[in-house]
Amino acid sequence: MSDVLQRLAAVLEARKASDPDSSYVASLYEKGLDAILKKIGEEATETVIAAKDGDSGKIVYETADLWFHSMVLLAQQGLGPEDVLNELDRRFGLSGLEEKANRDR
Amino acid sequence: MSDVLQRLAAVLEARKASDPDSSYVASLYEKGLDAILKKIGEEATETVIAAKDGDSGKIVYETADLWFHSMVLLAQQGLGPEDVLNELDRRFGLSGLEEKANRDR
Amino acid sequence: MSDVLQRLAAVLEARKASDPDSSYVASLYEKGLDAILKKIGEEATETVIAAKDGDSGKIVYETADLWFHSMVLLAQQGLGPEDVLNELDRRFGLSGLEEKANRDR
Amino acid sequence: MSDVLQRLAAVLEARKASDPDSSYVASLYEKGLDAILKKIGEEATETVIAAKDGDSGKIVYETADLWFHSMVLLAQQGLGPEDVLNELDRRFGLSGLEEKANRDR
Repeated sequence: MSDVLQRLAAVLEARKASDPDSSYVASLYEKGLDAILKKIGEEATETVIAAKDGDSGKIVYETADLWFHSMVLLAQQGLGPEDVLNELDRRFGLSGLEEKANRDR
Repeated sequence: MSDVLQRLAAVLEARKASDPDSSYVASLYEKGLDAILKKIGEEATETVIAAKDGDSGKIVYETADLWFHSMVLLAQQGLGPEDVLNELDRRFGLSGLEEKANRDR
Repeated sequence: MSDVLQRLAAVLEARKASDPDSSYVASLYEKGLDAILKKIGEEATETVIAAKDGDSGKIVYETADLWFHSMVLLAQQGLGPEDVLNELDRRFGLSGLEEKANRDR
Repeated sequence: MSDVLQRLAAVLEARKASDPDSSYVASLYEKGLDAILKKIGEEATETVIAAKDGDSGKIVYETADLWFHSMVLLAQQGLGPEDVLNELDRRFGLSGLEEKANRDR
């Protein structure tokens, strides 16, 4: 399971050479940053709606959409999931998750 | 790196027994679903802002915040990152990422 | 200028009897609440993007989209812009806008 | 009722000279654009949550918050509600609201 994000990142990288007419991801790259960011805003809203419906299947589906489009953003920016995972690791490996409590208001 | 999400999920599970006064995550659980969803909306917006600034460090930081709060939602709903990763795997293992192109208008 | 919102509300009310195939607003009513809410999330994100671009024309355009879809939500819920304007009036007529400062965190 | 937005715009303009320590709006101006945009993302999410709860009072309250913070953005950018109302008027006065149907996929 644990290498899904790496494999997805490799696919997203490969899509940089794909035809925008036949690849959804390549079409997002071609439309550019704003198109990717709109999807992130959209999928976040859909996750909120799914959660308010209390529908586990939809929550998983929309969260997958949200993470997927976050990873398209990372790829488009020359970043990858390991950057995000390292940041999460740093936070709760180093000082514990509770640093958030101090940082955040 | 690859087990960061699992370890984070374990920490989030353990926080269900923590004191809301000393744990940020426990305080989110106590405030309830809407408080968690507001954070997801907030962090998605902050990711958009970071990306428009073209600031790689901030993009990673805000995406980590977005994934973190998604995982708090999953934990609060009795779900976990493996559900999201399985969904991503199903999508691009089974029919390829391009299913999105067909599904999505 | 000041009656634009009332006239728009009247149009939105009239669209409840329109054919979803020929009216965008009627098609939103038919798709239901979630479709309207997704548009609100989307237009909020587009407003953020426009503002980060510092593009006045786009800010006005996207804010108009955001208010428009807010008003579709109000109409769908049997509410109207006067409810929102009364709430704004109550806030800064009664105790001044600064009530927000006290209320908010 | 109809002049609420104009009066609010005047108040928001006046707050540009206020002390950030005593005025919520002045504190938003001082924090800058990103702080205002985060509020727009936040209030859009809260509007979605209120609507999913089917709570009319909360929908009005959160929509008022959303419009309020949109107006803080307009003021900060040297714009005003008349720009947004003129845009709405142009859309449904000129070619009818249905232009949206054509424009928007």
